[in-house]
Amino acid sequence: MLNKKIKSASIVIIGNEILSGRTQDKNINYIAKELFKSGILLKYVCVIPDEKKIIVNEIRRLKKKFDFIITTGGIGPTHDDITAESISLAVKKSYVLHKDAYKELVKYYKKIKSDLTDARKKMAYMPKGSKLIKNSVSGAPGFQIENIFVFAGIPSIAEAMTKEFLKIIKVKNKFYSTSITTKLFESKIAHILEKAENSYHDVSIGSYPIYDGKPRGVEIVISSMANKANVLKAKKFISSQINKII
Amino acid sequence: MLNKKIKSASIVIIGNEILSGRTQDKNINYIAKELFKSGILLKYVCVIPDEKKIIVNEIRRLKKKFDFIITTGGIGPTHDDITAESISLAVKKSYVLHKDAYKELVKYYKKIKSDLTDARKKMAYMPKGSKLIKNSVSGAPGFQIENIFVFAGIPSIAEAMTKEFLKIIKVKNKFYSTSITTKLFESKIAHILEKAENSYHDVSIGSYPIYDGKPRGVEIVISSMANKANVLKAKKFISSQINKII
Repeated sequence: MLNKKIKSASIVIIGNEILSGRTQDKNINYIAKELFKSGILLKYVCVIPDEKKIIVNEIRRLKKKFDFIITTGGIGPTHDDITAESISLAVKKSYVLHKDAYKELVKYYKKIKSDLTDARKKMAYMPKGSKLIKNSVSGAPGFQIENIFVFAGIPSIAEAMTKEFLKIIKVKNKFYSTSITTKLFESKIAHILEKAENSYHDVSIGSYPIYDGKPRGVEIVISSMANKANVLKAKKFISSQINKII
Repeated sequence: MLNKKIKSASIVIIGNEILSGRTQDKNINYIAKELFKSGILLKYVCVIPDEKKIIVNEIRRLKKKFDFIITTGGIGPTHDDITAESISLAVKKSYVLHKDAYKELVKYYKKIKSDLTDARKKMAYMPKGSKLIKNSVSGAPGFQIENIFVFAGIPSIAEAMTKEFLKIIKVKNKFYSTSITTKLFESKIAHILEKAENSYHDVSIGSYPIYDGKPRGVEIVISSMANKANVLKAKKFISSQINKII
């Protein structure tokens, strides 16, 4: 069994537009998949409004609990974009102009032949001591301060920043995961799955109904952070037990 | 101005499959929209794993803070469906067979000509004193205990239960909301929006970049829980200021 320390992560989605239902979040699922592929355990996600006090409290609460905090949203040029300022407060650093971020903005707006207005200049302000997270899509970078990684909310930019994040943290574990699909109902196999989970150390077993208006069976997902052998043993056990029922 | 007390809500999504990225959540956006239409303020959403201790802690923390807590997921028949048992612990009630829930299951499985196995019977267990939330899709009901409303995770069932929830709580306020679309960039209008939000009491203004690879302008959403007159005044002000720039 590998003895790597598994890293944990949390995502904080900042945006009234998600809470009002105006916008469907697309970042949770994308980032969750990328973390899973890199063997980082996503343990908590929350969605909070664009309110300074709430952002400060939530960041302070979560940054102690998880190895990495990723935020999305609220780093644009308008008055409701208060993430960078709020995170400065949360980590008790001054909210200052980052020179390299400013250079990125100058370069980008020159390229697209548009003005670097005061509102846009705001996007170079962040907690003192932040490291930039490159934005390959639209100039304005995200940033890292302590274990907090601040991404834009627009999905194409959040995706690009997720890739940068994975380069920065250099964590690369491996999940072992496999699945079995059966037409049997969940209720028919519940006892088998429970027995398998209890029998094989380090293995986690999820069962997901396949449902398209009517139940069509179940997908069983068997996974482990550290023990590939037991994933395969559990799969073999479950398959043989299911075959006995059929 | 209306003087109704605005009710607040929180959603707790329970499911490892969301955190691993295996499944894209569809319930947050649906429920958020329905709450918004009914004038209930969704203030917090979180996604947590199928772990008893975490569910108990999170439910206890949130049930004090918001008028309504809605949970989705983890009320099926398999070993990883531990929501009902965890919520019993959270509210310190015994986890018991609900007679009417059991009758619903008997009726449903008779109708679809399938067995009411022990695993399925588990779906009639919930905290003592719970009221049922009807499941018009697949038999097994959700339940309400105190200010906690427990829904299934499968989107079609969660949607049906959201409708039942709105019937049960009988809250019906009204948001006033309108929007302006402009091809101007956010940075060009940021000062106008800030001035409008400061000038019109009770009005909240959001600005959302329209983005399809390249920025295409902004949608400005002007809304209020209580003050329709100011929503209209703010809209008029913003439109006239934008026309000056164009």
